[in-house]
Amino acid sequence: MTDEEFAAVVEGVRETVDPSTAERERMEGVAQELRRRAEGAVDELPVDADVLQVGSTARNTWISGDRDIDVFVRFPTELDREELEEYGLDVGHSALPEGHEEYAEHPYVKGVVDGFDIDLVPCYDVEDAAAIRSAVDRTPFHAEYVAGRLDADLAADVRLAKQFLTGIGVYGSDLRTRGFSGYLTELLVLAYGGFREFVEAAAEWHPPVELDPEDHGDETFDDPLVVIDPTDPERNVAAVLSADNVARLQHYARDLLADPREELFFADQPAPLSDAAVEAAIAERGTTPVAIRFAAPDVVEDQLYPQLSRSLDGITEALDRRGFDVVRSTAMADETAVLLAELAVDERPAIERHEGPPVHVREHAAGFFEKYADDESAYGPFVEGERYVVERPREFETAAAFLRSDQLLDVRLGTHVASALEADHEALIGEEVASLAGEFGVELAQYFEPEP
Amino acid sequence: MTDEEFAAVVEGVRETVDPSTAERERMEGVAQELRRRAEGAVDELPVDADVLQVGSTARNTWISGDRDIDVFVRFPTELDREELEEYGLDVGHSALPEGHEEYAEHPYVKGVVDGFDIDLVPCYDVEDAAAIRSAVDRTPFHAEYVAGRLDADLAADVRLAKQFLTGIGVYGSDLRTRGFSGYLTELLVLAYGGFREFVEAAAEWHPPVELDPEDHGDETFDDPLVVIDPTDPERNVAAVLSADNVARLQHYARDLLADPREELFFADQPAPLSDAAVEAAIAERGTTPVAIRFAAPDVVEDQLYPQLSRSLDGITEALDRRGFDVVRSTAMADETAVLLAELAVDERPAIERHEGPPVHVREHAAGFFEKYADDESAYGPFVEGERYVVERPREFETAAAFLRSDQLLDVRLGTHVASALEADHEALIGEEVASLAGEFGVELAQYFEPEP
Repeated sequence: MTDEEFAAVVEGVRETVDPSTAERERMEGVAQELRRRAEGAVDELPVDADVLQVGSTARNTWISGDRDIDVFVRFPTELDREELEEYGLDVGHSALPEGHEEYAEHPYVKGVVDGFDIDLVPCYDVEDAAAIRSAVDRTPFHAEYVAGRLDADLAADVRLAKQFLTGIGVYGSDLRTRGFSGYLTELLVLAYGGFREFVEAAAEWHPPVELDPEDHGDETFDDPLVVIDPTDPERNVAAVLSADNVARLQHYARDLLADPREELFFADQPAPLSDAAVEAAIAERGTTPVAIRFAAPDVVEDQLYPQLSRSLDGITEALDRRGFDVVRSTAMADETAVLLAELAVDERPAIERHEGPPVHVREHAAGFFEKYADDESAYGPFVEGERYVVERPREFETAAAFLRSDQLLDVRLGTHVASALEADHEALIGEEVASLAGEFGVELAQYFEPEP
Repeated sequence: MTDEEFAAVVEGVRETVDPSTAERERMEGVAQELRRRAEGAVDELPVDADVLQVGSTARNTWISGDRDIDVFVRFPTELDREELEEYGLDVGHSALPEGHEEYAEHPYVKGVVDGFDIDLVPCYDVEDAAAIRSAVDRTPFHAEYVAGRLDADLAADVRLAKQFLTGIGVYGSDLRTRGFSGYLTELLVLAYGGFREFVEAAAEWHPPVELDPEDHGDETFDDPLVVIDPTDPERNVAAVLSADNVARLQHYARDLLADPREELFFADQPAPLSDAAVEAAIAERGTTPVAIRFAAPDVVEDQLYPQLSRSLDGITEALDRRGFDVVRSTAMADETAVLLAELAVDERPAIERHEGPPVHVREHAAGFFEKYADDESAYGPFVEGERYVVERPREFETAAAFLRSDQLLDVRLGTHVASALEADHEALIGEEVASLAGEFGVELAQYFEPEP
């Protein structure tokens, strides 16, 4: 790689990600109007409050085409929670007459103005970020910290970094992605002094990597990347980031440096697999995929994906424990949700080995021996090493039999997944899994044609 | 159990194991004659030496029907090894004119007199057992130690103990059995003060169990039973005893105490299985037995069985490592030798998971990535946790393919087993194993109808 190649690629990406003057002016016009409306509504309230714009559009790190404007109304801490919510909604509805209420930490109003998606959110005006009452109270501190440090060049590099992280699939701190948040990206570009410097550093990381921009951290974290929040010494900004995504960033950072190209910045969703292509992949791999399919629980994604993940762990552990070796597994959700496990072994013999206690633990051992000595269906007990061992009939000789039994519901499942399975579900075995291609062709392509 | 029941059983066994007066007189007559002949031969030698009878027939712990008489000729330590061997054979041949030479620690002469099997063995007259030059030098010390302490009642209880250990299959310190030697049995009966006391103690053992009759041990041993040799503080008399056999003794000791019966004293070899019975057992268990059969190496059993055991470990580890899960395994030897492993899984998919290095180990990781990135036959590399992972074609999709490949010879094998396999062998898969019933019907019965 030459520096020129890298610079040329970056220039090309900038043309896409940097908002045009017209776009910027339009956004600023809408934001200004919104702030004005909100301030007018605050004047009608019996309490004082200030209005501030936060998020990427407030600090010049938004990417062309982003249409999210976040306006916060900051109330005194003397207000109790009900008052804050009431006043917050008052301001929201009067600033966004067409808006509707949603609920995150507090209820808030969401609406569309001139094509921009507006969130109008109440929060408390706490003394510092360590004193917050809910996560949204922290946002103004982040806004202030970053705004005071990012000049135009660094802000432009943050846009590049966000686009790169998006392109390689690791941008977003939602619990489906478990990637890099906007704030984390800003702190990393600030810490390393630019996009290229960030990429070069990431290529060399040896996790756990610890950054503490304000040098005030005093807790220890068990995460692959630790970035102590400059506004809160007790918080790791990268807490939600998965080890996979750290490794992915490292992989693609090296790839970008070795062979700079614009395509790395722009996600390339694979073409969906057809039923026939799934069947062909199964045949080529010689495995037995199995899937549990059910109506996707009606909860937000940040609830849904951790529950799917926990449920998938529960099912793969249960399969592995019964000798149905899982090669790989994944969860998918759209209208229906699917827990898919690909098995290397889908059938076991009629017997299973079952180790008893050491013979010298007399009472235990005698109990075990008596239990099986007269059991015609068991081989043994015999002695192996210091223990009694029997070979007894296996409960499930096939993975299909287990997955179609009531015991599927006894595995560790997310709460809403458990209810959904109890209501209704189907088990797909082997080639039957190909029928998922209609709803999940892209996810199956990602599964059967895995990229870093 | 009542004491009467136990006593009645013991009385019954005594009738079988105690030699009659006539038998005893016949044995003593032969032994005396042998000692006389040996002493006569020693008189012809240019050195002095003494003649002594050792072993169970010398100390009244032989079981009716045993026909082994061991006579040792003990030479001064000034002799070098060649002289000892020459003089030893001279005495042997003149005492046993019909005898032939065998080789253990030294060459010695073996012969038959009046139906008794006689070993005439030379050894050195060392100062104490810690100063021995070879294992046979220790034997006279054992003989002397036991003879001085076993009265007629204890000797009778040693006979009971030997018969019990024989009946439950754990008597003999050869490397096939890895059980209790005669000397160990004598020490245990001495230590606990009788047969019943020994059985009651064994039923309660919590291995590791340590006995040190002379209270002079100073080494530590990593064995389930440690009995410090009264004639050598550095030796565990039970070193060769396996954990299985300790556990077996404990099991049957409890069984004997709970339900005293003579059958426990008398080995009950199972009826051999027929080919059809083996096939039925395989079908019932749903497993895939596999066997490697070859000409039994022409070495003594104490060499053969450890080599078979090591080779069986080598093969089962190689099968397990390739995903062909071994349920149980055994080795058998007669004219041919057989390494048998029973598989729960005999077929794996076309692909296998292969973990690469952590992505952050940059050079290693890059090498791994490059190796597989352009490999059309591999899936991935993709990232899982902090590592690269690929799914690559599996070398052996069936256990049969592995066992019939050259790689079978790369597993850890005993030296003579390796040579035998190189010369010729066959792999039997699944029902083909039933053809072993002709030579190994009893062993297959022991395998498919396992007892403690």
